[in-house]
Amino acid sequence: MKNTFGSSVTLTLFGESHGPAIGAVLDGLAPGLEIDEGYIARRMSLRRAVGKISTPRREEDRVEFLSGVFNGKTTGTPLCLIIKNNSAHSGDYDELRSKARPGHADYTGFVKYGGFADHRGGGHFSGRLTAPLVAAGAVLSYALEKKGILICSHIAECAGIRDDALINPAESIPALNEKSFAVLNDAAGEKMKAAVEKASAEGDSVGGIIETAAVGGPAGLGEPWFDTAESLISHAVFSVPAVKGIEFGAGFRFAAEKGSEANDPFEVRDGKIRTVTNRNGGINGGITNGADIIFRTVVKPTPSISLRQRTADILKNENCEIEIKGRHDPCIVHRARVVIDSVTALVIADLLAQRYGTNRLGVD
Amino acid sequence: MKNTFGSSVTLTLFGESHGPAIGAVLDGLAPGLEIDEGYIARRMSLRRAVGKISTPRREEDRVEFLSGVFNGKTTGTPLCLIIKNNSAHSGDYDELRSKARPGHADYTGFVKYGGFADHRGGGHFSGRLTAPLVAAGAVLSYALEKKGILICSHIAECAGIRDDALINPAESIPALNEKSFAVLNDAAGEKMKAAVEKASAEGDSVGGIIETAAVGGPAGLGEPWFDTAESLISHAVFSVPAVKGIEFGAGFRFAAEKGSEANDPFEVRDGKIRTVTNRNGGINGGITNGADIIFRTVVKPTPSISLRQRTADILKNENCEIEIKGRHDPCIVHRARVVIDSVTALVIADLLAQRYGTNRLGVD
Amino acid sequence: MKNTFGSSVTLTLFGESHGPAIGAVLDGLAPGLEIDEGYIARRMSLRRAVGKISTPRREEDRVEFLSGVFNGKTTGTPLCLIIKNNSAHSGDYDELRSKARPGHADYTGFVKYGGFADHRGGGHFSGRLTAPLVAAGAVLSYALEKKGILICSHIAECAGIRDDALINPAESIPALNEKSFAVLNDAAGEKMKAAVEKASAEGDSVGGIIETAAVGGPAGLGEPWFDTAESLISHAVFSVPAVKGIEFGAGFRFAAEKGSEANDPFEVRDGKIRTVTNRNGGINGGITNGADIIFRTVVKPTPSISLRQRTADILKNENCEIEIKGRHDPCIVHRARVVIDSVTALVIADLLAQRYGTNRLGVD
Amino acid sequence: MKNTFGSSVTLTLFGESHGPAIGAVLDGLAPGLEIDEGYIARRMSLRRAVGKISTPRREEDRVEFLSGVFNGKTTGTPLCLIIKNNSAHSGDYDELRSKARPGHADYTGFVKYGGFADHRGGGHFSGRLTAPLVAAGAVLSYALEKKGILICSHIAECAGIRDDALINPAESIPALNEKSFAVLNDAAGEKMKAAVEKASAEGDSVGGIIETAAVGGPAGLGEPWFDTAESLISHAVFSVPAVKGIEFGAGFRFAAEKGSEANDPFEVRDGKIRTVTNRNGGINGGITNGADIIFRTVVKPTPSISLRQRTADILKNENCEIEIKGRHDPCIVHRARVVIDSVTALVIADLLAQRYGTNRLGVD
Repeated sequence: MKNTFGSSVTLTLFGESHGPAIGAVLDGLAPGLEIDEGYIARRMSLRRAVGKISTPRREEDRVEFLSGVFNGKTTGTPLCLIIKNNSAHSGDYDELRSKARPGHADYTGFVKYGGFADHRGGGHFSGRLTAPLVAAGAVLSYALEKKGILICSHIAECAGIRDDALINPAESIPALNEKSFAVLNDAAGEKMKAAVEKASAEGDSVGGIIETAAVGGPAGLGEPWFDTAESLISHAVFSVPAVKGIEFGAGFRFAAEKGSEANDPFEVRDGKIRTVTNRNGGINGGITNGADIIFRTVVKPTPSISLRQRTADILKNENCEIEIKGRHDPCIVHRARVVIDSVTALVIADLLAQRYGTNRLGVD
Repeated sequence: MKNTFGSSVTLTLFGESHGPAIGAVLDGLAPGLEIDEGYIARRMSLRRAVGKISTPRREEDRVEFLSGVFNGKTTGTPLCLIIKNNSAHSGDYDELRSKARPGHADYTGFVKYGGFADHRGGGHFSGRLTAPLVAAGAVLSYALEKKGILICSHIAECAGIRDDALINPAESIPALNEKSFAVLNDAAGEKMKAAVEKASAEGDSVGGIIETAAVGGPAGLGEPWFDTAESLISHAVFSVPAVKGIEFGAGFRFAAEKGSEANDPFEVRDGKIRTVTNRNGGINGGITNGADIIFRTVVKPTPSISLRQRTADILKNENCEIEIKGRHDPCIVHRARVVIDSVTALVIADLLAQRYGTNRLGVD
Repeated sequence: MKNTFGSSVTLTLFGESHGPAIGAVLDGLAPGLEIDEGYIARRMSLRRAVGKISTPRREEDRVEFLSGVFNGKTTGTPLCLIIKNNSAHSGDYDELRSKARPGHADYTGFVKYGGFADHRGGGHFSGRLTAPLVAAGAVLSYALEKKGILICSHIAECAGIRDDALINPAESIPALNEKSFAVLNDAAGEKMKAAVEKASAEGDSVGGIIETAAVGGPAGLGEPWFDTAESLISHAVFSVPAVKGIEFGAGFRFAAEKGSEANDPFEVRDGKIRTVTNRNGGINGGITNGADIIFRTVVKPTPSISLRQRTADILKNENCEIEIKGRHDPCIVHRARVVIDSVTALVIADLLAQRYGTNRLGVD
Repeated sequence: MKNTFGSSVTLTLFGESHGPAIGAVLDGLAPGLEIDEGYIARRMSLRRAVGKISTPRREEDRVEFLSGVFNGKTTGTPLCLIIKNNSAHSGDYDELRSKARPGHADYTGFVKYGGFADHRGGGHFSGRLTAPLVAAGAVLSYALEKKGILICSHIAECAGIRDDALINPAESIPALNEKSFAVLNDAAGEKMKAAVEKASAEGDSVGGIIETAAVGGPAGLGEPWFDTAESLISHAVFSVPAVKGIEFGAGFRFAAEKGSEANDPFEVRDGKIRTVTNRNGGINGGITNGADIIFRTVVKPTPSISLRQRTADILKNENCEIEIKGRHDPCIVHRARVVIDSVTALVIADLLAQRYGTNRLGVD
C-alpha cells in the first residue's frame, strides 16, 4: 500500500520537502480521542532541529487539522493534518537535478519516477516528512498514555559512545520524554554531542543506535504468521529514513548464546503470568507476552555530508564529483528518536484496534 | 492480514503441526510458470532435518498441488499446495496443555486463542509450517532464477563460530545451494556442527546468524514510505520463528561510522550507474539500487531444550517446572536458511509484480 | 486481493472444477466457534443439484477440514477446508479448448491467463467453487445464528414468475431454510419449476431474482466512504457467477419516487430508535440502522445451453458454431440462493469483527 | 480500509462539510501524468450546483494540489488535493444535533461515532465530499483518455421520465461531457427539469437512473473470484451517497429472459474476437471482454426535503417532528453523474495498474 501503513488504524503520508505542504491522514481512529495541542507541540519540538548538532533550517512546524477533529476531539472519521513548508531554499538543490548524492534516494528515485519527482530537498524522500509522522504519532501516543501504554526511546549509542543500559523503562520514561537529546547518562550525552560537533566541523556525519521501550501494553497483540508484532514494528521502523537494522530483546547477541540463557522463564507474579527475565523483548512467537516491548534500531550516519564525494551524473550517465551544499544534520539520531516512538505508537494502536475493535481506543 | 503476506503476489499459510495437513495458497502468480518438482524437492530437502544436529522427527514432506497447476505449469489462478502430516507423536505434548514452554508461543497463544488452539507440537506456531513456505518459495525462486534473479544464504555465524565473509554472492550461490549445512568455509562448518552436537548432548541449544544475498534484481523495487524494500523484507523475515533481528548492509556497524565511510559512491560501470561499494545492502531510500541485496538475520537458540526449566502452569496459574520431551532441534539455523530464502523470494516476486504487472513474471 | 475477500475475517478461495480438490481458507475467525457438521451438511445440501431442474452431475461434496479446527471448535488460526472432486467427466470439455462458450469466461479467461488455465468444466471460474464458499459460509452463519443474526433468501422471481413478497423475514426464515427450492408461495414455486423444465426441454435456460434478508444485526456496521455496507455486500455478491445486478430496499423503484415516499421515518419503539418503514433496506449513509438488511440480486439465465450457438474459435481466430455437451443446469437460481446467503454471512462476520474485535464473534 | 479504495492505485478521502477543507490523496499514480487544470475545472463544473434544480449553496471549489505534482505533471508520489470550505452556514444545522433526518446518516453516524462526529451539514457523510472525488477522478480520466479509454454517463431516467437509449456510447460521449444536465434527448431533459422544479416547489425531491459507459478499455481486466470488474465497480459506486442499486448490461431484465437471449455470441471482427451483441455489459465471468462496459445506477430521491417529517430525537430518545432548513438539492441525479464517472475511472485505472504495472498509465 505504498504510503499507507496499518490495517485497522491506518496512516497515509504525503508531501515533498519543498512543496506547499506535507501531511498525513489517520483513519480508523476511535471517536472521542482528545487532541491536546500542547502535547502535540511538545512532541514536535523533540523532533525539531536544535543547536550546533542539527541543520540550521528552522521550520515552525505548526500542525493544522483539516478534518476529523471537532470540538477538540477526534470524530472517528479520517483525520487529515498538514504542516506548511515555509523555509525552503530551493536554489540550493539545482546541482542535484542530475548528480546523485551517495547514500540518498536520488538515483533510486530517478529509476522509479523517471525524472518526474520533485528533486528539491529530497522531495518525498525527505526526512522532513517525519514531521507529520510525529504529529500523527502524538495523537496516538496521547491516547495510548491514557490507557497506560507508554512508549519511549533513548540514544543507546551515538558516534561510538554508549549511554547507560535501560534497566527500568517505566521509571526512565518521564525524564527521557522531556529531553531534546535523550540519554540516561548526561555525561555520555555530552561526549556524544561533542563527537557530533567534531564530525560536523570535518564536513562529516555520525550514526547511532536508538533503544525503544513500550510499557504497559496487554499480552496477546500480534498474529502468526505474517503479522507478528516484530514484523509490524520492523516494517514501520524501516520506513524511517536511515534505519538499517533492528533487533528485539537480546537481538544479535542471541547468535552466541545457549537456549538455556535465551529463554525467559515464566512465573506467577501479582497473580499474573509474567516472564522472570525479558531477553525476548516482550514478544514470544510473534505475540506480545505483557513484558516491556524492547527493541534497538540502528540509524546510519546522515548521508548528506559536505565533503567532496565521487558520484555519477544521472542525466549525462558519466562520472563526476559532488559537494553537497544546503543545510544538513551531521547527526539525526537524536531527532529520529521521537519518529521511532511515533511509528511504534501507530503499530500498537493498530494492533489494539484489530483485537478489541476500532472503537475501543477511545472512550469506554 | 494475519496469515497472508504480499500485495500483488500473496501467500496464505495454514495448518497445525499435528493436524491432517499443512499448506499454502499462492495467489497473483503469472500464468505459465513452470513447476519443476525436482527443483522443489531439492529445496525441501535443504530444510529437512538431517543427522545428529536436528530433530529425529522425519517427515516425507511430499508436496501435493490441489489447484493452480495444469500440465506442469501455473494457471494464474490460486495455487494451493499441501503437505500431509504423517509422523505426529501427539502423546509427547500432553504435559504442554498447561505448562508454558519458555521462549515458545504457548503462553501468548493461550492469551490470544483462549485455550482453543491445537497445542500439540506448537500447533499453528510450529516450525513445521515453514515446509509449505519453502515449497511456495521454491515455485517462486525457480521462476526468479529464469529471470536471472538468484537468492542464497549462508550460515554467517553459529554457536559463536564465524563463517568466511560473503564477498562475491553470485559466485558462491551455486555451491551454497547444494549444501545442507551452508557455509563458505567447511572447516568452520565442522566446528559449528561440533558445537551444536555438544550443546545437544548438554540438553541445550544454540543460535546463529544467516546472511542472505539476492543478486540480479532490477533497481527501482520498493516504495517510500511504508513499503520500502527493507520494510517488506524485514516484515517477511520476522515471520520466521526464532528470528530476533535483521540488518541490511553494514547494519549495526553503521552506529560507529562516519557518513564518509557509510555512503556508497556511484560510478558508471558497463554503461550503467552502479555503486562502487555496497555498504547499504543494495538499498537506498528504501528502493533497490541494482547492487546485491544483502542482509543478515539473527536466529535465537531453539527454545525447546531438554534441561529442566522454571515456568508457570497456565491453567492452574501457579509456578512449576518443565522438562520438554519429544523430538527437537538443538539448532535450526541451518534449516532456517532456505526459509529465509523463501520469504525473500516472495517479497521480490511481489515487488516485481507490483512494478511490472501481475502477468510479467511468467512467459514474456 | 483477487481470490481473497474481507478485512478482519477473510476468505480465500482456490481450486478448479476438474482438479484434485477445491477449497477455502477462512482467517481471522474467533477461537471457540462450534463446527456443527450436520448444520454444514444441510447448508451444502441446499446448494446441491436436485431433480430435473438441475445438472445430473452429482458430487458428494464432503467437507474436510485440514486446519483451524480442534476438538470440534475453531482454533482462531486459519481454517482450511477442502472438497475433493470425484465426478469429473473431463472428456466432455475437449471442444472447449478453443471454442469460447458465449456468456462464459472462456474468452476472457484466455485473454487473462494466455491459454494456461485449466479449461475443463470452466476451471477456476466454475460454479463448482461455490461449494467451498457455502461450506465456509455455513461455519460463519452458524456462529452468527448463535448471536441472533439470521440470513435467508427466497426466489423472488424465476423465469418471469413471481413469488410472494417477503413481508416478515424473521418469521419466514425457518421454513425457507428447509426448502431446496426456496419460495414463500409453493404454487408459484411449482410454476417456476415447470418453466425451468420447459426451458430445459428446449435446450435453453432461465434466470431469476433472489431476495435476501439479514435479520438481527446491530446498527452501526459499515464505513463511509468506501466500505459502506452496500459496497461490501455488492462486492461479495458480484463474486457469485451469473449475478448481474443488485438493489437494496426499494432499489430501482426509487427512480420514480419522491423523497417523501423514499425516506424511512424514525420512531422510538421498545425504547430504541427504529425506522417505521424499511424502504432503504436497513442501511442509511452506508451504515446499518438496525432494521432488516434487504437486497435483491438478479441471476442471469445459465449461459450453458444445449442449443447451437455462434461463437469464435480462440486459437484459430475464426468464426464457428458450438453445441455445448456435458451436464448443465437449466437454472441456477435455486442453487445460488445459499451462495448469496454465504457471502452475506461473510460480510457481516467481517464487519462485526472490525467493529468489535477479532475475538468477539466467539465465546464472550 | 474504510476511506481508502483501490489496490494499486488508491484514493483516500477526508473532510467534513463544514470543516476547514475537504480533500483526497491519490497514491500509486504513474509519474509523468499531465495535470490539466482546465480539464479538471470543467469536470468540477459538471458536478456544481446549477439553476433552480440545485441547492443555492455555491462553492468556488478551487482545487489546490499540496503534493505529488511538479512542473504540471504527477511525480508518482502521493498526490494530495484539497478544496477549502468557504460557504458554510453552520447555524442551519443546530436542530440536527439531535433530530435524525430520515433517509440520512444522522442516526447511523451517531451509533457509529457516539456523538463525536461533526454533525454540521452531514459532516463526513456530506455529498460535498464528492468534490475531491471528482477532482481526483479528473486526474485519472484525463490520463485514461490519452490512452483511448473514455468514460461517460447520461441521465437515463429522472422523476419517472426516460431519456433515449444509449446506443452508441463512443459517439455520444463528446456531447454528453459538455452538458451540465446530461441527456441524449433534450426534450426529455426539459421534462425532467420541470418535474424537479415541481417537486422542489412542493418541498419534495426526486430520484433517477444514471447509465454509464466505459469505452476503449482492454479485455482481461478484473479477477475471479472476489475482484471481478462488477465487484469493484459496484463497490466504488455504492460509495456514492444515495445510490441504492446497480445493474450491468441487461441487469434485472435478465430475470425474465432465456439463456439463448442473454448470451452474447462471439465473432471475429476486424481480426479480433468481439461480442456480436453486448447484453452482458462488457463483462464475462467478472472479466472485461473488450466490449463497452455498461451499467446503470439508481439514485434515490434526495433525503433532504423541506416537508415536515416524523422522526426521533437521538439524545432524548423520544419521538418528534423535523422540518429541514438549509440549502438542499431537490435532485442530485444530474450532479451525481460525474461522480459515478469518477469512481469508474478510479476502478479502471486501478485494474490497469494491477495488470500492467504501476508505472504504465503514464509515459510509455
